[in-house]
Amino acid sequence: MAIPVSASSVEQAIVELKQRLGGRANDTPAVRDHHSHGESYHEPSAPDVVCLPQTTDEVAEILRISTRFQVPVVPFGAGTSLEGHVNAIRGGITIDLREMNKVLRVSVEDLDATVEAGVTRLQLNKALNNTGLSFPIDPGADATIGGMAATRASGTTAVRYGTMRENVLGMTVVLADGTAIRTGTRARKSSAGYDLTRLFVGSEGTLGVITEVTLRLHPLPEAVSAAVCAFDSIQGAVDTVIATIQLGVPVARMELLDEAQLDAVNRYSKTTYPVAPTLFFEFHGDSERHVAEQAEAVQALAADHGGRAFQWATRLEDRERLWQARHDAFYAALALRPGARAWTTDVCVPISRLAECVVDTKKDHAVAPFPICLVGHAGDGNFHLIYVLDPASAAELDEARRLNERMVLRALAMGGTCSGEHGVGVGKMKYLEAEHGPALEVMRTIKRALDPDNRMNPGKMLTV
Amino acid sequence: MAIPVSASSVEQAIVELKQRLGGRANDTPAVRDHHSHGESYHEPSAPDVVCLPQTTDEVAEILRISTRFQVPVVPFGAGTSLEGHVNAIRGGITIDLREMNKVLRVSVEDLDATVEAGVTRLQLNKALNNTGLSFPIDPGADATIGGMAATRASGTTAVRYGTMRENVLGMTVVLADGTAIRTGTRARKSSAGYDLTRLFVGSEGTLGVITEVTLRLHPLPEAVSAAVCAFDSIQGAVDTVIATIQLGVPVARMELLDEAQLDAVNRYSKTTYPVAPTLFFEFHGDSERHVAEQAEAVQALAADHGGRAFQWATRLEDRERLWQARHDAFYAALALRPGARAWTTDVCVPISRLAECVVDTKKDHAVAPFPICLVGHAGDGNFHLIYVLDPASAAELDEARRLNERMVLRALAMGGTCSGEHGVGVGKMKYLEAEHGPALEVMRTIKRALDPDNRMNPGKMLTV
Repeated sequence: MAIPVSASSVEQAIVELKQRLGGRANDTPAVRDHHSHGESYHEPSAPDVVCLPQTTDEVAEILRISTRFQVPVVPFGAGTSLEGHVNAIRGGITIDLREMNKVLRVSVEDLDATVEAGVTRLQLNKALNNTGLSFPIDPGADATIGGMAATRASGTTAVRYGTMRENVLGMTVVLADGTAIRTGTRARKSSAGYDLTRLFVGSEGTLGVITEVTLRLHPLPEAVSAAVCAFDSIQGAVDTVIATIQLGVPVARMELLDEAQLDAVNRYSKTTYPVAPTLFFEFHGDSERHVAEQAEAVQALAADHGGRAFQWATRLEDRERLWQARHDAFYAALALRPGARAWTTDVCVPISRLAECVVDTKKDHAVAPFPICLVGHAGDGNFHLIYVLDPASAAELDEARRLNERMVLRALAMGGTCSGEHGVGVGKMKYLEAEHGPALEVMRTIKRALDPDNRMNPGKMLTV
Repeated sequence: MAIPVSASSVEQAIVELKQRLGGRANDTPAVRDHHSHGESYHEPSAPDVVCLPQTTDEVAEILRISTRFQVPVVPFGAGTSLEGHVNAIRGGITIDLREMNKVLRVSVEDLDATVEAGVTRLQLNKALNNTGLSFPIDPGADATIGGMAATRASGTTAVRYGTMRENVLGMTVVLADGTAIRTGTRARKSSAGYDLTRLFVGSEGTLGVITEVTLRLHPLPEAVSAAVCAFDSIQGAVDTVIATIQLGVPVARMELLDEAQLDAVNRYSKTTYPVAPTLFFEFHGDSERHVAEQAEAVQALAADHGGRAFQWATRLEDRERLWQARHDAFYAALALRPGARAWTTDVCVPISRLAECVVDTKKDHAVAPFPICLVGHAGDGNFHLIYVLDPASAAELDEARRLNERMVLRALAMGGTCSGEHGVGVGKMKYLEAEHGPALEVMRTIKRALDPDNRMNPGKMLTV
């Protein structure tokens, strides 16, 4: 169901929004353009107006105006999404949550915090200074907590700390009709009713606008160390990961980089890592001894699987240099080809199929006309490709589309998912039928029930 | 909306079910009576017929017959539920899943397994012998995995391993109209669509019948030890729990028993624990040294908070005796009063409020005309009361109802939930409005969308 949005109804909505929000309802071309895209290759599409609410009540008011004039609504956080989630493909109202950026409450005793949706993860961790606690979920970008919840983000630390699915205790959400609800409680577990929190985590703005989030926090580890190890083969690296998890080593990060990515990292970060499939590890423990035990256990497993030159870094500056190189992977890939743009994609498979999925996918790359780097959260079975494209070349874009599709279908055939952490947006919509089968119709039923006018981020995730 | 069920339509449904299932559609009084209740105080209510399907297809067939004749359906696992979930309060068809009891697949590499819904947790753990893996979620009873998923069960190990929310990767569910869907994939994480798995976990049979469950497994710990410690006060015990979690000690179990429960345990299990607020601990680690470090850290914290006589048990038989005493808590309470019945209830609060909630609740008990024992999963902020009642006394039942209500409202006022792990069933329905506010209407919207005839376990969890 797609109700056509008339130009006049949008204009009337803008008039009312300006009456209500003043300068915080902005329809200047520069602001609209800034909100036309995330960090993806998807075609930009500007909203008609951008609103910057400061309270949940203001978000509710915007939703009521959206209802009255039947105008679409797109939530917007830090604009770091990778699958076109924030592109206003049907115009309408973009709700930018950046002015809802207060850390509302931190409880050291309960290891939880409540933040407004526009708080970023680095801002939250800064606010946690001196509490002994941290919010460790790290998708790379300094995304907003609301955006991370909406896309069910995760990242390098998910192998130990879980994803947003495990770390959101509850939230405030404004529904399509402007009703504000609170999901969950501050109790750490509950058996009292449907799990609306998990329904809204990962709903990508298609069911409501998240305005506040209550999060689990984690104690800062007493001791941290890191290590890097090159392998003879991807298979050896992945087998080391599997053995590490089977042994129950509570490794905090376990990142896989392929030789193309290592080469890019060396060039960009002036490092001298062997150009080979490589694992980067981080260990968190309650004592130096416990961290050392973990590193020794993993070193032995790596040696069993063709790991060479296991380098262990305990000093802060060595660890920082190591992880800086890992974090620069995206920019290192881009720097391989001046003037290029990146198309980033991800899939996630059962870890027993990870090596096979990676190896088969890399075979596809042999004749690609552009550089491709691979980096993955191996402990989760999740990996990313970065296609380094000439933005002016339709042929390269077509080839990237073809390679991406082959990888997604391969992951699905292995019992995996078309996205481990980037989300569906517009980029992965076409694969949901293959992934979910008849369950997709249940998702559509829920979408229709909660957003009968299809005004909430329409055209994303699923068609209704 | 409650469509009246006519006697003739039920009779026709039974005829068709017998044609389809033969002797596995059973309407004898003894079988119906056996399926009229779980382990709770709630009034029994028998279904008109009990079906024992052996496949998802047969469950789908039963649902199609239910649709055609507009007859309610109640899923039934091991019959251990505590809030009347399985009582067939509107008659109809009970689907007993006990014949769907195959462990379909275990993957040691992926640390996951797929089981039919009627597999019990002890059966699963037996099947995992010699794999080095276990399914540690332990609600006490030998419940079925399907039932545990349906009530979002947890138990003593949730503080370390999470609840069914965290440990179900996906499932097969038969919807009201007989459509079978598969939720989730075997990937450990996904950002591809609404989290239907988490929607059905904890839905108590009100949205569909769970027929298969894919679970996370966990490596068996290399080393295990246990400890018990009595405290001067509940506050001291709870403060020890808070400090343990803040320090990041990965304790596997942390159980609180009050002095009434300890007295009952001593009488029943012939133990000689001090009659005082007491914590039972279990430590899992990747080495004896790591387990010893955890126990030493907790011992020091306990000493800071009025803990006396910290007894550490590393030998298997000592650990088993200790945990047997904990597991016998329910029977120990019942044995306080021969001929009595137990009313068991639970709430869960932010852990910072746990001591206050327990202390205030115990003040209410001072003049109760029956014994009351308290046992709790303190690391989660979750505790249970066992009211040991004379089943013939309406006055005692009324008093239990009053005490239960006071405790639930107290927990809600503290930001908690009316049930941490027992579920809503019929027993906690009246509190959902107070707990969820306008979010309850979202639950009703979802229920109406997925079960428009209100045939799926009607009259449980929420009214529509």
